[in-house]
Amino acid sequence: MNADIQRRRRAAADAVLGDRRSMPPRGDAEAFAPANIALVKYWGKRDAALNLPVTGSLSVSLGDAGTRTAIRPADRDSLRMNVNLIDPAAPAARRVSEFLDLVRPSSAAGFAVETVNSVPTAAGVASSASGFAALVRALDGLYGWDLNPAEMSVLARLGSGSACRSLWDGFVEWIPGTDSEGADSRGAPIDVRWPELRIGVWVLDDAPKAVASREGMRRTVETSPLYPAWPAVVARDLIEVRQAVAGRDLERLGRVAEGNALAMHATAIAARPSALYWRPESVAAMARITALRAGGMPVWFTLDAGPNLKLIFEAASGAALTREIPALRSLAPFG
Amino acid sequence: MNADIQRRRRAAADAVLGDRRSMPPRGDAEAFAPANIALVKYWGKRDAALNLPVTGSLSVSLGDAGTRTAIRPADRDSLRMNVNLIDPAAPAARRVSEFLDLVRPSSAAGFAVETVNSVPTAAGVASSASGFAALVRALDGLYGWDLNPAEMSVLARLGSGSACRSLWDGFVEWIPGTDSEGADSRGAPIDVRWPELRIGVWVLDDAPKAVASREGMRRTVETSPLYPAWPAVVARDLIEVRQAVAGRDLERLGRVAEGNALAMHATAIAARPSALYWRPESVAAMARITALRAGGMPVWFTLDAGPNLKLIFEAASGAALTREIPALRSLAPFG
Repeated sequence: MNADIQRRRRAAADAVLGDRRSMPPRGDAEAFAPANIALVKYWGKRDAALNLPVTGSLSVSLGDAGTRTAIRPADRDSLRMNVNLIDPAAPAARRVSEFLDLVRPSSAAGFAVETVNSVPTAAGVASSASGFAALVRALDGLYGWDLNPAEMSVLARLGSGSACRSLWDGFVEWIPGTDSEGADSRGAPIDVRWPELRIGVWVLDDAPKAVASREGMRRTVETSPLYPAWPAVVARDLIEVRQAVAGRDLERLGRVAEGNALAMHATAIAARPSALYWRPESVAAMARITALRAGGMPVWFTLDAGPNLKLIFEAASGAALTREIPALRSLAPFG
Repeated sequence: MNADIQRRRRAAADAVLGDRRSMPPRGDAEAFAPANIALVKYWGKRDAALNLPVTGSLSVSLGDAGTRTAIRPADRDSLRMNVNLIDPAAPAARRVSEFLDLVRPSSAAGFAVETVNSVPTAAGVASSASGFAALVRALDGLYGWDLNPAEMSVLARLGSGSACRSLWDGFVEWIPGTDSEGADSRGAPIDVRWPELRIGVWVLDDAPKAVASREGMRRTVETSPLYPAWPAVVARDLIEVRQAVAGRDLERLGRVAEGNALAMHATAIAARPSALYWRPESVAAMARITALRAGGMPVWFTLDAGPNLKLIFEAASGAALTREIPALRSLAPFG
């Protein structure tokens, strides 16, 4: 990471932390944050250093599915994920250390970080969002910063863009903001409870992706001739999804979320070279859901930058859907 | 077909035929026209009645792969395709009769039409383009109109848009034109021979399509939020493909043709509801070609509104490619 980028990221963290930087740690701390699934996708950065998005996005947090993180001061950084000690040179450990650089009291200070995901990493639910949100909450506890969720959201965004949506339960919108340093780019909760809503995770392929999501996003923004149409898609879909959430209108929510995910993948498919995240099994699964829906079952799908499907349905369809798709893992966002 | 549409189509045919309408038939006639594969796709109509396109497109004709058509005056219309007599109420027969309405000397006059495709219809090469081009050539012979290819191209376009590119061998560009009645919307040949070029047809699924190509095109233009970006894709790709053809630059031709096909499918995938033409096998086949290319084989793919792949390569790679993909049928556009 070059010096200018580091300086800008550190300044963005300073804008949140202010005087709190001088507070001493309290020993150790532990915190949890939920994973989230975007119903209107985050796809494209206007600033890669600060994870500032081109557009807004809207997600639902996944209740008790997420990441639990413990942290304590140490001589040097170490990262344990789901019991495994991660090589400090591995991308996941470097990304955590680069984030800890933002809050480190001195360059000599390290942190021992241990995380456990309650949804297996291979289950196709991104762990970076819940991971960085839980890390910020744990740091807040360790130092007693007492940040509010909006402040923690700005900080978590510097670790992973979508992490800024994992500071709340339920529906969360990421307000893209206009500030060049990202002070106003953060999550904002939507005050709607929808206890019957379910998100089903259907894992079709747990092999590493051929194109990482950050790379696919970058390549799409830079080379896809269809990307210029994406911001207007999001603007329109956000309005519809907000209305669908407010009215707890599953048909509308599912239809727009599915269309938004397909439009996101379409922009990536048209990148040059193409960023095609689908496996043959993904296409078969999409056709299966379309057929189930044609047969009267109220179920829709979304896909993130990977081959797996996430299904959107209500509790009443859960049993029938699990009979059709035994591999489905059903999650309850509202407990 | 409503009266206003019929009137406009008939007027467009009159503009080509003029005084020739009064010429008597000479007995019978027979003609051939090649199929064509678009390297820059025709995707979207600005006028559905006259098959006027939103953008230009560029194709290569497939040599001796195409349609041979015989025609003679008869008491009523009849259509035989590959030996089978087609029910006059079937879509294919109705489409031919509606085209014959444009040239019929009187409403009582019929035609017996017999067509034979030298590539099986199920092989995934559209037969409507070569079919309507051959029909126009056969009518020209039957009546001794002596139209030039550009005039025949305007007439053939009224039967099927892409038929206007099947009046020439080799590379053909469809000039979209600006006239509201389509007088200047027709094919134009490109004076380049490329004897080593091959088009491989890789059939993955010969079942009828879930979404017909006309319907997918219409739905994409009307509902896909990414379609507004399509005309700019074509404008850019046409420039590159013209240059690739002029320089017989396979790498450039393949790369741009593949990117153009993926962008076309991407606009359709983003239609609402989605028009997804791919089968699981299509995704596996695209990954296979990408892997072969990564391994050093100069081969690219294109797909029309269906699940099958057409490969773009040169004769030197033919044997190795057929070993890898035994089902591949290789066609030589330049004989």
